[in-house]
Amino acid sequence: MSILTLAFDADDTLWHNETLFAVTSEQIGALLAPYADSDNLHRRLVETERRNLRLFGYGVKGFTLSMIESAIEVSEGRVSAREIQAILEAGKKLLAHPIELLPQVRESLEGLAKKHNLMMITKGDLFHQESRLAMSGLGDLFSAVEIVSEKNAETYRKILRRYHLDAEDFVMVGNSVKSDILPVLEVGARAIYIPYEITWELEVAELGNPDPSRCRRCQSIAEVAGTVAEFFQTV
Amino acid sequence: MSILTLAFDADDTLWHNETLFAVTSEQIGALLAPYADSDNLHRRLVETERRNLRLFGYGVKGFTLSMIESAIEVSEGRVSAREIQAILEAGKKLLAHPIELLPQVRESLEGLAKKHNLMMITKGDLFHQESRLAMSGLGDLFSAVEIVSEKNAETYRKILRRYHLDAEDFVMVGNSVKSDILPVLEVGARAIYIPYEITWELEVAELGNPDPSRCRRCQSIAEVAGTVAEFFQTV
Repeated sequence: MSILTLAFDADDTLWHNETLFAVTSEQIGALLAPYADSDNLHRRLVETERRNLRLFGYGVKGFTLSMIESAIEVSEGRVSAREIQAILEAGKKLLAHPIELLPQVRESLEGLAKKHNLMMITKGDLFHQESRLAMSGLGDLFSAVEIVSEKNAETYRKILRRYHLDAEDFVMVGNSVKSDILPVLEVGARAIYIPYEITWELEVAELGNPDPSRCRRCQSIAEVAGTVAEFFQTV
Repeated sequence: MSILTLAFDADDTLWHNETLFAVTSEQIGALLAPYADSDNLHRRLVETERRNLRLFGYGVKGFTLSMIESAIEVSEGRVSAREIQAILEAGKKLLAHPIELLPQVRESLEGLAKKHNLMMITKGDLFHQESRLAMSGLGDLFSAVEIVSEKNAETYRKILRRYHLDAEDFVMVGNSVKSDILPVLEVGARAIYIPYEITWELEVAELGNPDPSRCRRCQSIAEVAGTVAEFFQTV
């Protein structure tokens, strides 16, 4: 068998992310409560994010700008400079937040790195993801790190070409059906889906019933080694 | 002679950038004029940008957040939500601004691409720089595009390793002494400096008196072909 490449998503696969955004969104919601009822507010925050995605891309800086924009909109211009400053500070706190690895991440990756070639493939803000990888202390476990602006089939095809990898020898591990699973199956590689406790509304997608010899669901990263072994006994 | 790789910076080397930031900064300055005198204001805007650079990295989104932060600071919280909205809109306008190529860029690159391997190496926001490259219509001229979070000697060493390039066969072309010239000379490659009409204050550096067989200054990209020919006749 040729050398396998296991590629890992980062946010919510290796370290906590969406829970931090959720806490921040809630704090901003509380701050803006005088200006709008909370259901309406949440819907409008998500709408602003969605609308700005084509201009901002993913990441904390775009999120913060969208939150400021929403605050001005929902308050009809009544939000104060101090309240906007609080939103700015919340965004900066998110950017500077220490990395909290998910359970068993380090030991699982160390075990997998002995047998396989490991990569990290994450989307989001280049500068912030590099900072987080450095903070995580996991950098040395990956032979390559790809920070991309979008994870679609074309992105994965480019990465396979760039590293001269065969889709048959490539397994992607991640928590997003939309970004880590469906496009990977589309290019003929395999995928392991590890759901995170919450999913960002703009990442929700249906997994359907994929072929279990190409795609499996795990409860945690500790199950990846066993799942990879099963994949390659069944082909 | 082996195949030469010519790598181009993008902002202010291939297309206008800093002039757009300068116009936007001036508009924001005018907006905030009621709160601070203009010299003091400019100094504080630049200070905020510099202070936030380690958290935000380069790019329009970080710039916009820094401008909002400055507006709240210099006005001591008196800036209105509508004024902050105007800053946000100015940032969005910068992000969506059409690409304006510098003179002779397309024809020069097309000529150079017939003889040499061309790359683009730019820092800044991944998502925004990819959008701009797509808008520029220049994408097909480059065999590789590297969007990096910082341009120092280590960045260039990594790129040379990644593409299996010899520093002797690599020439970087750009408008920033700090990012495109000095670190390139440090890794033993050659560099062509093409000054842009203005330089961002956080990019200013002294060129000194580099060896003319390793580093030359050109007036425009149209002179690159001749300068490259001179470089490799003198070695």
